[in-house]
Amino acid sequence: MKLIRFGLLGEEKPGVVTEAGMFDVSAFGEDFGERFFETDGLSRLAAWWSANGDKCPKLPEGTRLGSCVQRPSKIICIGLNYADHARETNAAIPTEPIVFFKSTSSLVGPNDNLVIPRGSEKTDWEVELAVVIGKKASYVNQDEAMDYVAGYALHNDYSERAFQLERNGQWVKGKSADTFAPLGPWMVTKDEIKDVHNLRLWLTVNGKKMQDGNTSNFIFNIPFVVSYLSQFMSLLPGDVISTGTPAGVGLGFNPQIYLKAGDVIELGIDGLGTSRQEAVAWTK
Amino acid sequence: MKLIRFGLLGEEKPGVVTEAGMFDVSAFGEDFGERFFETDGLSRLAAWWSANGDKCPKLPEGTRLGSCVQRPSKIICIGLNYADHARETNAAIPTEPIVFFKSTSSLVGPNDNLVIPRGSEKTDWEVELAVVIGKKASYVNQDEAMDYVAGYALHNDYSERAFQLERNGQWVKGKSADTFAPLGPWMVTKDEIKDVHNLRLWLTVNGKKMQDGNTSNFIFNIPFVVSYLSQFMSLLPGDVISTGTPAGVGLGFNPQIYLKAGDVIELGIDGLGTSRQEAVAWTK
Repeated sequence: MKLIRFGLLGEEKPGVVTEAGMFDVSAFGEDFGERFFETDGLSRLAAWWSANGDKCPKLPEGTRLGSCVQRPSKIICIGLNYADHARETNAAIPTEPIVFFKSTSSLVGPNDNLVIPRGSEKTDWEVELAVVIGKKASYVNQDEAMDYVAGYALHNDYSERAFQLERNGQWVKGKSADTFAPLGPWMVTKDEIKDVHNLRLWLTVNGKKMQDGNTSNFIFNIPFVVSYLSQFMSLLPGDVISTGTPAGVGLGFNPQIYLKAGDVIELGIDGLGTSRQEAVAWTK
Repeated sequence: MKLIRFGLLGEEKPGVVTEAGMFDVSAFGEDFGERFFETDGLSRLAAWWSANGDKCPKLPEGTRLGSCVQRPSKIICIGLNYADHARETNAAIPTEPIVFFKSTSSLVGPNDNLVIPRGSEKTDWEVELAVVIGKKASYVNQDEAMDYVAGYALHNDYSERAFQLERNGQWVKGKSADTFAPLGPWMVTKDEIKDVHNLRLWLTVNGKKMQDGNTSNFIFNIPFVVSYLSQFMSLLPGDVISTGTPAGVGLGFNPQIYLKAGDVIELGIDGLGTSRQEAVAWTK
């Protein structure tokens, strides 16, 4: 199943995507958030959809999509999880995952504008595969970790490199601006992805290919990451884990390349769809 | 006004504290979370309390308190915001605030047990003054920053120093275990605190004074911190900012001192009440 959320920012309603198009499932009566996932909402929705899908309104082309899941309790990111990206940023290959948070207030829809923060000169892109947690995970072993995964989504982990790296410590400072986390178009349930560790992911800026990687190059795979994180904190239903980015970010070029108003960023992952953001300047 | 939340973990109800005791205000019909603060809930509650306070049930002694605010979108912490604490940890005095996040799943009530995480050998304490945000703050100036503050609460920013500092990067890893953020007993509205920049704060372990500081020694004061953070992310109503800890944490002793099962930690801040946690070992 592919879940979407559609409508005005902050007023999104739940929907489902099939080969026939996008459908409004607000009659199901629940948004795709913590409570939905923790009460086995995916199974309940699938049963409801079987019985009621033919009565659900089809959404018109051009309907705005919001983040494909409701605001989670946390967005956890893994740093430097592709060896080629670690090399391009002159960082050592991590011996265990680097973990940082991204503000959940940075979440937006997959095709919303990227607002370059006030005073930013180093806004950068990062195509990433995001994992959505399906049930509370605490001290979970690797061999059972996939039981705690609901599905996957496309994520652009926008990063202000000066805020992240030159402003006195802890990356969250450069990861959390509004619009810095376009998530979607959809969350696809894990059963629909044959091998999550062999998906191509790519990103272009103004049509030029900047990133072109494959999740087969993860340093730490998804069961490892879920198990690892669950040793340090409880992962709650609906929580988002962004699994790191391959080579090709602006920080890695010589000279470095950063986004400016008018730039168009497009990205995609096999099976997870594509998204498109236009960069705009911050205004009051 | 002093706000509390009481009852079983995860089922807390709202309450109010006066000199006459603790009172159940669940008849007001709202929990103390994002929506309450963003819709001027403090003013509405004050008016409601004037009209209905005499009909509110008094809570018995020993009623369990939960976190004094509902789970916020984020808990933002300021690192090394007291010069004496920076010195004891051999860190440089920051030239601008060090910012890190703490998982909101770590929130518990002020007198709940501290669960020492599995495998932890370096669980440490940090008495801190927490600020609760009253309305959405984005690119706020220092001179208006206090308009965005709803009130204050006592916080113990528990920290696993090995997870934080020896596990390959980013402090959040050592700040986010379940029970690592006892918040309360109450949130006091800012009008009741005459000078938030001159409050004594202290912490004892098994009755022995470990921390004894004063917020007059902040390196970065509250208007500065609120304004500063709002340049990097939107602060949402109900968000919690923990403003750093004075000298006297376990990491700063020679040899270092860490918590073990059975230890009793008590802490307080002038006007913000006291809290007490007993350390227990993790069990499945």
